[in-house]
Amino acid sequence: MTGLRAVLFDTYGTLVDWRSSLLDELAAFGRARGLAQDWVAFLAAWKACYRPGMDAVNRDEAPWTTIEAIYERRLVELLRARAIEASPEDVQRLTRAWWRLRPWPDALPGLARLKMRYVIAPLSNASFAGMVNLAKFAGLPWDCVITAENARRYKPHADVYRTALGLLGLEAPEVMLAAAHNYDLAAAQALGLRTAFVPRPLEYGPGQTTDLVAEGKWDAVVDSVEELAAALSC
Amino acid sequence: MTGLRAVLFDTYGTLVDWRSSLLDELAAFGRARGLAQDWVAFLAAWKACYRPGMDAVNRDEAPWTTIEAIYERRLVELLRARAIEASPEDVQRLTRAWWRLRPWPDALPGLARLKMRYVIAPLSNASFAGMVNLAKFAGLPWDCVITAENARRYKPHADVYRTALGLLGLEAPEVMLAAAHNYDLAAAQALGLRTAFVPRPLEYGPGQTTDLVAEGKWDAVVDSVEELAAALSC
Repeated sequence: MTGLRAVLFDTYGTLVDWRSSLLDELAAFGRARGLAQDWVAFLAAWKACYRPGMDAVNRDEAPWTTIEAIYERRLVELLRARAIEASPEDVQRLTRAWWRLRPWPDALPGLARLKMRYVIAPLSNASFAGMVNLAKFAGLPWDCVITAENARRYKPHADVYRTALGLLGLEAPEVMLAAAHNYDLAAAQALGLRTAFVPRPLEYGPGQTTDLVAEGKWDAVVDSVEELAAALSC
Repeated sequence: MTGLRAVLFDTYGTLVDWRSSLLDELAAFGRARGLAQDWVAFLAAWKACYRPGMDAVNRDEAPWTTIEAIYERRLVELLRARAIEASPEDVQRLTRAWWRLRPWPDALPGLARLKMRYVIAPLSNASFAGMVNLAKFAGLPWDCVITAENARRYKPHADVYRTALGLLGLEAPEVMLAAAHNYDLAAAQALGLRTAFVPRPLEYGPGQTTDLVAEGKWDAVVDSVEELAAALSC
């Protein structure tokens, strides 16, 4: 792909399997306390705070708030509603479970190949610290870390993609976004970035109905990060 | 060192030998054009724009300007004053020689050891892109990149160190700055960061008179990044 210099990655879902990792952490938390709880439903309710919390920031209805703070507030509400006792340390440990997520099997080998030829970085709605800690845990070999926190806006706000271009000192066609989510690619493409769709049909578990197919004319549609590396001659 | 989580590094001078690397590039540029020129004096005059250019930003006398833009402007002036012809491509290639600097011999092995236990990142007055490209060229194995550009202020302005703490989500005593320059350590220490002095007596060549000895009570004074790793039990 002529002139391509950097490949940015959505991370939650695209590179790491947040759902099964978090279900393990929640189940372990429950077992240690002898709790009978539907953790699948609990996690769905927890994750449901993600978009509204970010949209409020993007619409200037809330001040800049990291995704951890949004998740932590929601977690406290959910635990309280279910009368589950948890210490502040429990709440922090569970919130930071978002920093301990397993990569999909193709992510690390694919990133290692891409890194030899391109600058690779996350472009995530995570906090900067969250993405640094996740990279350390999961072994994501980033050249640098860029997140919504650098723009103090959340994807798909244009400021996030523009901030990445500015920090990297690159023009939009020199940068590709790879993501498992069509909405993210649409926002990047609107600004001139190249796009790669990496569907993750199990991100939301066996019943997933969204983001199963490409909903736009993306530059690449691949089944794995390794396939993306091959498509980009790495 | 109890509670330490991250080690930040000044980069130009502390980790990479900018002077000998740039002298090689300037000499090669001159040889290819048959120029007789005192490149040592030329480089000293070029580097001399560094502090005034940054101070103007810190005093709000100039808008945010990356260090590359400051260097490029000064380079054009110096070439013109010496009647040296250079194309825009020449100017860009020479300016970006600041992205192609050799690490001191102890830097890479020391960083590799520190990375196993701590988050490691630059805290440089470079542009973000400059630091990303330098890391790629020199093999600096950063967990993330943080530069003055993230704060739009230059060290030793407190905003630069505070921005790093904010992005890393850490308190000052959890973070150490390692630098070859006493002024940088003094600013970090004033905010509560830990400090390590790594003198580089040849940074400015054989006649160097500054930063040869510790001028403050730094937490560590070491002769190399490998020695710092050992001091931090890595």
